[in-house]
Amino acid sequence: MSDPDGRLERVLDALVDSYRAPGPLNALETWALPNRRAVIEGFVHLQHLLYLGFFSTRSLGPDTLRLALGEHLLEARERLCAQIGRATAWQDRRRPVEERRGPGWASERVLELLEALPTIRERLLGDVEAAWRADPAAESVEDVVFSYPGVVAITAHRVAHHLYRTGVPMIPRILAEHAHARTGIDIHPGARIGDRFFIDHGTGVVIGATAVIGDDVRIYQGVTLGAHSVRGDVERDRERVVKRHPTLEDRVTVYAGSTILGGDTVVGADSIVGGNVWLTHSVPPGSRITRDHQGERT
Amino acid sequence: MSDPDGRLERVLDALVDSYRAPGPLNALETWALPNRRAVIEGFVHLQHLLYLGFFSTRSLGPDTLRLALGEHLLEARERLCAQIGRATAWQDRRRPVEERRGPGWASERVLELLEALPTIRERLLGDVEAAWRADPAAESVEDVVFSYPGVVAITAHRVAHHLYRTGVPMIPRILAEHAHARTGIDIHPGARIGDRFFIDHGTGVVIGATAVIGDDVRIYQGVTLGAHSVRGDVERDRERVVKRHPTLEDRVTVYAGSTILGGDTVVGADSIVGGNVWLTHSVPPGSRITRDHQGERT
Amino acid sequence: MSDPDGRLERVLDALVDSYRAPGPLNALETWALPNRRAVIEGFVHLQHLLYLGFFSTRSLGPDTLRLALGEHLLEARERLCAQIGRATAWQDRRRPVEERRGPGWASERVLELLEALPTIRERLLGDVEAAWRADPAAESVEDVVFSYPGVVAITAHRVAHHLYRTGVPMIPRILAEHAHARTGIDIHPGARIGDRFFIDHGTGVVIGATAVIGDDVRIYQGVTLGAHSVRGDVERDRERVVKRHPTLEDRVTVYAGSTILGGDTVVGADSIVGGNVWLTHSVPPGSRITRDHQGERT
Amino acid sequence: MSDPDGRLERVLDALVDSYRAPGPLNALETWALPNRRAVIEGFVHLQHLLYLGFFSTRSLGPDTLRLALGEHLLEARERLCAQIGRATAWQDRRRPVEERRGPGWASERVLELLEALPTIRERLLGDVEAAWRADPAAESVEDVVFSYPGVVAITAHRVAHHLYRTGVPMIPRILAEHAHARTGIDIHPGARIGDRFFIDHGTGVVIGATAVIGDDVRIYQGVTLGAHSVRGDVERDRERVVKRHPTLEDRVTVYAGSTILGGDTVVGADSIVGGNVWLTHSVPPGSRITRDHQGERT
Amino acid sequence: MSDPDGRLERVLDALVDSYRAPGPLNALETWALPNRRAVIEGFVHLQHLLYLGFFSTRSLGPDTLRLALGEHLLEARERLCAQIGRATAWQDRRRPVEERRGPGWASERVLELLEALPTIRERLLGDVEAAWRADPAAESVEDVVFSYPGVVAITAHRVAHHLYRTGVPMIPRILAEHAHARTGIDIHPGARIGDRFFIDHGTGVVIGATAVIGDDVRIYQGVTLGAHSVRGDVERDRERVVKRHPTLEDRVTVYAGSTILGGDTVVGADSIVGGNVWLTHSVPPGSRITRDHQGERT
Amino acid sequence: MSDPDGRLERVLDALVDSYRAPGPLNALETWALPNRRAVIEGFVHLQHLLYLGFFSTRSLGPDTLRLALGEHLLEARERLCAQIGRATAWQDRRRPVEERRGPGWASERVLELLEALPTIRERLLGDVEAAWRADPAAESVEDVVFSYPGVVAITAHRVAHHLYRTGVPMIPRILAEHAHARTGIDIHPGARIGDRFFIDHGTGVVIGATAVIGDDVRIYQGVTLGAHSVRGDVERDRERVVKRHPTLEDRVTVYAGSTILGGDTVVGADSIVGGNVWLTHSVPPGSRITRDHQGERT
Repeated sequence: MSDPDGRLERVLDALVDSYRAPGPLNALETWALPNRRAVIEGFVHLQHLLYLGFFSTRSLGPDTLRLALGEHLLEARERLCAQIGRATAWQDRRRPVEERRGPGWASERVLELLEALPTIRERLLGDVEAAWRADPAAESVEDVVFSYPGVVAITAHRVAHHLYRTGVPMIPRILAEHAHARTGIDIHPGARIGDRFFIDHGTGVVIGATAVIGDDVRIYQGVTLGAHSVRGDVERDRERVVKRHPTLEDRVTVYAGSTILGGDTVVGADSIVGGNVWLTHSVPPGSRITRDHQGERT
Repeated sequence: MSDPDGRLERVLDALVDSYRAPGPLNALETWALPNRRAVIEGFVHLQHLLYLGFFSTRSLGPDTLRLALGEHLLEARERLCAQIGRATAWQDRRRPVEERRGPGWASERVLELLEALPTIRERLLGDVEAAWRADPAAESVEDVVFSYPGVVAITAHRVAHHLYRTGVPMIPRILAEHAHARTGIDIHPGARIGDRFFIDHGTGVVIGATAVIGDDVRIYQGVTLGAHSVRGDVERDRERVVKRHPTLEDRVTVYAGSTILGGDTVVGADSIVGGNVWLTHSVPPGSRITRDHQGERT
Repeated sequence: MSDPDGRLERVLDALVDSYRAPGPLNALETWALPNRRAVIEGFVHLQHLLYLGFFSTRSLGPDTLRLALGEHLLEARERLCAQIGRATAWQDRRRPVEERRGPGWASERVLELLEALPTIRERLLGDVEAAWRADPAAESVEDVVFSYPGVVAITAHRVAHHLYRTGVPMIPRILAEHAHARTGIDIHPGARIGDRFFIDHGTGVVIGATAVIGDDVRIYQGVTLGAHSVRGDVERDRERVVKRHPTLEDRVTVYAGSTILGGDTVVGADSIVGGNVWLTHSVPPGSRITRDHQGERT
Repeated sequence: MSDPDGRLERVLDALVDSYRAPGPLNALETWALPNRRAVIEGFVHLQHLLYLGFFSTRSLGPDTLRLALGEHLLEARERLCAQIGRATAWQDRRRPVEERRGPGWASERVLELLEALPTIRERLLGDVEAAWRADPAAESVEDVVFSYPGVVAITAHRVAHHLYRTGVPMIPRILAEHAHARTGIDIHPGARIGDRFFIDHGTGVVIGATAVIGDDVRIYQGVTLGAHSVRGDVERDRERVVKRHPTLEDRVTVYAGSTILGGDTVVGADSIVGGNVWLTHSVPPGSRITRDHQGERT
Repeated sequence: MSDPDGRLERVLDALVDSYRAPGPLNALETWALPNRRAVIEGFVHLQHLLYLGFFSTRSLGPDTLRLALGEHLLEARERLCAQIGRATAWQDRRRPVEERRGPGWASERVLELLEALPTIRERLLGDVEAAWRADPAAESVEDVVFSYPGVVAITAHRVAHHLYRTGVPMIPRILAEHAHARTGIDIHPGARIGDRFFIDHGTGVVIGATAVIGDDVRIYQGVTLGAHSVRGDVERDRERVVKRHPTLEDRVTVYAGSTILGGDTVVGADSIVGGNVWLTHSVPPGSRITRDHQGERT
Repeated sequence: MSDPDGRLERVLDALVDSYRAPGPLNALETWALPNRRAVIEGFVHLQHLLYLGFFSTRSLGPDTLRLALGEHLLEARERLCAQIGRATAWQDRRRPVEERRGPGWASERVLELLEALPTIRERLLGDVEAAWRADPAAESVEDVVFSYPGVVAITAHRVAHHLYRTGVPMIPRILAEHAHARTGIDIHPGARIGDRFFIDHGTGVVIGATAVIGDDVRIYQGVTLGAHSVRGDVERDRERVVKRHPTLEDRVTVYAGSTILGGDTVVGADSIVGGNVWLTHSVPPGSRITRDHQGERT
């Protein structure tokens, strides 16, 4: 293709100029940020470690289990150390050198995560079995592991939340958005979620950063656990000293399309929130909230 | 990277231990489950067979049509036979040997599907034309085939439903979740859907396993055709002797965000359900349900 | 695999037959339509041009900036010229030869787009900063660029809308559906969106073709800016002489799950529409609409 | 990486300048030459057609044979038509428009080649069986097809020679050099080679453009069938009116490292040329030439 | 592309017909033969096990050594077991079922090979150091491992020869031809080669199936260790009861282009064979053979 | 696959043990050596810079030339800087820190190479035209660039030799062996080669490190320019204070299979060395050496 009037060169000049001004989109050193693809690859190796047979394309047996796991352990560690190192270095880039966290810090965070994997596996087993028990549309428990978007989302969340709690920057959010893109389920890495958690269908679910969810909770598509209006003091909220998202106590069920807002809102244990409910205040244990009484205190 | 204290080896030991207990996540023989990627590849070849020109990267003509189709026919068959074989063997693994379905069973199911493709093409043509007629935002009918998530979803569903009806395990759900991940539209393979079906936008649509949908139905984003509370007898529901999801008769339209629940709920022919409606009982043909009268019987 | 009864050959015959009838799915010349993958590749190169450091896997510096941009400029141009050329030729295929737009037309459209990139970058910077200011869950502005689905969606939209306005067929919709598939946010390329636009979470957002959005607007997940019932004169609507979707004036906020319908509906500046609101008429500037008064005029 | 003194930009300027002068390396329109990779891909599909089972990664049976062949037939044709078209257009680029061969010419050449494949298969069968009969190191005839560089070389040659005889430019040489790179066997596409030809080991074999080889000939590594000194009239030789390379009659064997030169040199039928012989004159049928008498007439 | 006269279909018919006759090229069940690519992949994993750091793209340390090796061990084993299993099943296909070697046989062969790797590593270290000591053009011992074709060839040979001795069919030859294609060095897997073997440059080297080579031997490009004329009893030779290729005793050097023929030919220890020598009889230890006396007994 | 007796774990233990001993194959830090694939990729980008149209898969025109070259310039530089940096750091690893060459050294070497590219292009043009003039089998000069192994070899050599002269370790040899593997032509990077150099066929050509070749020289397959017996003082030779390989003056031709040995051997200008000649002493300008007088002084 030709460019007889030199327009393409002028386009290029203009683009180069557009990078001259300071500003977050023009910072060329952003090339040193984490590489999203590498983060996801690291996560895929974690998925192998967590659900080995389900991801294996090769025959497995008890005697080769250790070798098969070892393979993914090394790959996961390599990628996560590198990417957490990049994220940390970026966050520290304006700190005095002596306050920066070195590669040892990233490596330690990764080892801690790897050491937590057996515990995470136990919790994921609880999540999978909860789905199996709750959903008559599931044909087999393998079906659940294989096909349920909720399993992808909670797996990513349990890993992301572990990293988030230890102060790893950026990577937890990348994992959460990876799961969000695949499943339509948006769980902030900061959310605290109990055992045997089940999300059905899931598209449109949003769970905010300071939400707290007990054990044996079930949530359906389109449920929001959100904050009240956020045109407030964003910077202060960013510090997360304020709890802005609701609490669901043990054994709560929230049906599709319902919205529960506010950091002081507590849905008491064993409550059932029907579909399309709008709830902005606490309800005691054992409540049954439907669209008819939804805004009202019972 | 070094591991001076042997922590990585200990991590590995702990992970190996975590696979020792019995349980669905620890069953190493799950490596013999279907391979999701291969299922999707098989589906892509089916998409070529169904919409040849749209997927072709090579010039096509009437005289080479047979060769071009033959190429994908063989590839689709190969992959689907293998993966259906794996799914069937898994399901049969605890049956007595003489009751297990052999590879011939899988092969027969695939041949039946392939034989049904011309009929499926006719129905998909109806779906595409319905979208073109219904959506003023469509610039051309090719645009619809090319870009509409509803077309992806109904294509996957018509294939998945065919397999589901002939008793193929797991694969229909994998296809359905593939479409769900790409489009945000979650149709259970068991749902029975009539001709000229149109879903617009689609994100958040959920159609349950025992839903029944007539001809010329239109559905918008965020619509749920769901079951009532499911904390009941999950095992019995799993057998699907009970119809748990609603019926939409011919020419029903359901606007965005509405929820229709219950196996006995029938929306009569030619009815229109407005947006954000919550409907849990039947309405007669020709009804017009809006948010104002939504819960009430007319 | 064998086929002793020749069933596979008969399947093939039947499939070939199914392509004999005229009809949009059977038009073999559809192989000349744009190639979706190539369109997306072109868009990825545009993303490099717009957010260079964020997409780079290679170290960057001010002195090599021009070379690094030049690389993507050429690749973007090559792909977009080819695909826009294909889309145009398809649209023109039944016009008299002398009325057809040649490859020069496509090339000119691409140059115009490339020339607009610095302006688009400025607007995207505004969008990113708006997200940072609005969302306390954002840890850093880089986080926003990196992980926010809203940024993917608005980037695709600003490019798609530019092409749409200059009359490029099909390609804008392909870009919009690419973003829709990744984010669950469905913005029609025709929608006119002002500066500093922010979408949070985003799954289920639908913005129609004739919607008009002012500056500093914020929208949350599940919001629909839609048309009233569309079982009207589809062909006339297709011409877009009628405005069918609402207008949001400057500084409007619409919380999650709300639906605003109708081309005459104007949400006045500085209004706040609460969550799950259903709004089908205009409201004056400074309104505060909640679920309790949602349908009613205040 | 930085470039503080602008050296990289100056390098680029100098490179651009170096393309300003006319000359064969600077002709930018060379981008329209054939694409080597596409030629090789076309050849790989031909190898599938010729040796189906050996290249298949999928189970095959008599009833699916036609479909399996059809797949490769279409792919081979597509690629070869395109690349032969490019080579022809290049060769014709300075001819008057009315003398140029259009795409129909390329397509006709490819059809002729495809029509010749059954005959080529018969001859390749003869070559394979000759290797099996001649080489005690072969464990099985499958071994020969699978592993023998001579089979790769003669397969490429029989295809390249067919194209060469019908006047296809450039592509035959690309095929020949592909085989040369893989095997070390350099056969000019112009060489005429009889049935049941066997090359053992093969590295360093060179067979010139006007060589003529009878049936049942065997050649070992390092054998040259070359021309005398070529500092003569290159342009005239290029027309190939002159036979410059030797003739081997039926059932000749030439052992490793021997050199036979000259267009008038004829090695009579049933002769054996020992290793490291230097032969520049004809020998009668039944000769036995060894290093001791090599240059001398017997 | 069109095919108005149906020629392509007729080509296909003719090709299908060409597969009807019995014969080694037409045996469709050859799809069950080993997959060359998988064999090579298995070999690449062996190269990692043998030269870990040289092939690693990831940082390595003593504490992660075991995990890094384990990764390749599993991959190598998987591929080799499958491919040796295929080769064995092919060879056994006409034997009575009870005489066929099952998958356990292949697995045992692979384990034996893996158990031999430490020994093979020791011998390869000797080969590498011999090259370093012999070649003044080598800049570093790493250079030798990295770049020397002789190292590729002897690595493949030591693995192939191990498998050959244990009776594995086809695979050794595939490995040998892989090395031949890359290096121009053609060593039959049957050749017995001592320690500290060095091949310089290597192109055109041919070492026959029954050659025997002592320790500390050096060979240069174009050397043949071959058999006398082979128009004899091929079937008997195939059984390898006859030694047809020469013996080089310890510390023999053979310079470029020389040919040594015959199973009874023994080059005595410490002999030097000059370049371009033709030797068909034995020479005592300490001989120095040049072109001038080459054919003559000293 | 199972491993009931733990043999695989024992294999792994043995392999780990085999890496415990010191030695060049066991140095794990070899992972920091250059990556061969990256070196080759860098070379491919250089090939684009040198022969742009021939390697382009995209249309090119004079106005986009600069952008097209810029693309490869940046990629080539990136890869070569990284790999030369690795090679240098390896070579320096035992030097005191203050004597080590930093990344700036590698970067400077790459810039020098890039600055030399226009000159290298001129010389390669001479090489290509020389082939065209010398070889009647060439159909077009594009054919020569496209298909001639000699062009690949001399291109790699001219780049490798440039790097070699500036003291870059390892990389030149990797480039030389890359060309050797593809072409069978083995030119040591140290060889000094004049203008308009032509190698025909090329398999088996070996040109030693201290060979000197004048302008307009032609060489055929199987020619060795080698050293006398090298069982001498390898370490001293390694320093290259001694010229060990011959000199060919301007306009010398050496036909196939000839061997010329020794650092003092000078083939005078305009000489012709026939095929299969063995030459170990100098000959005056204008000599014509054939097999009959080959060893003798004329």
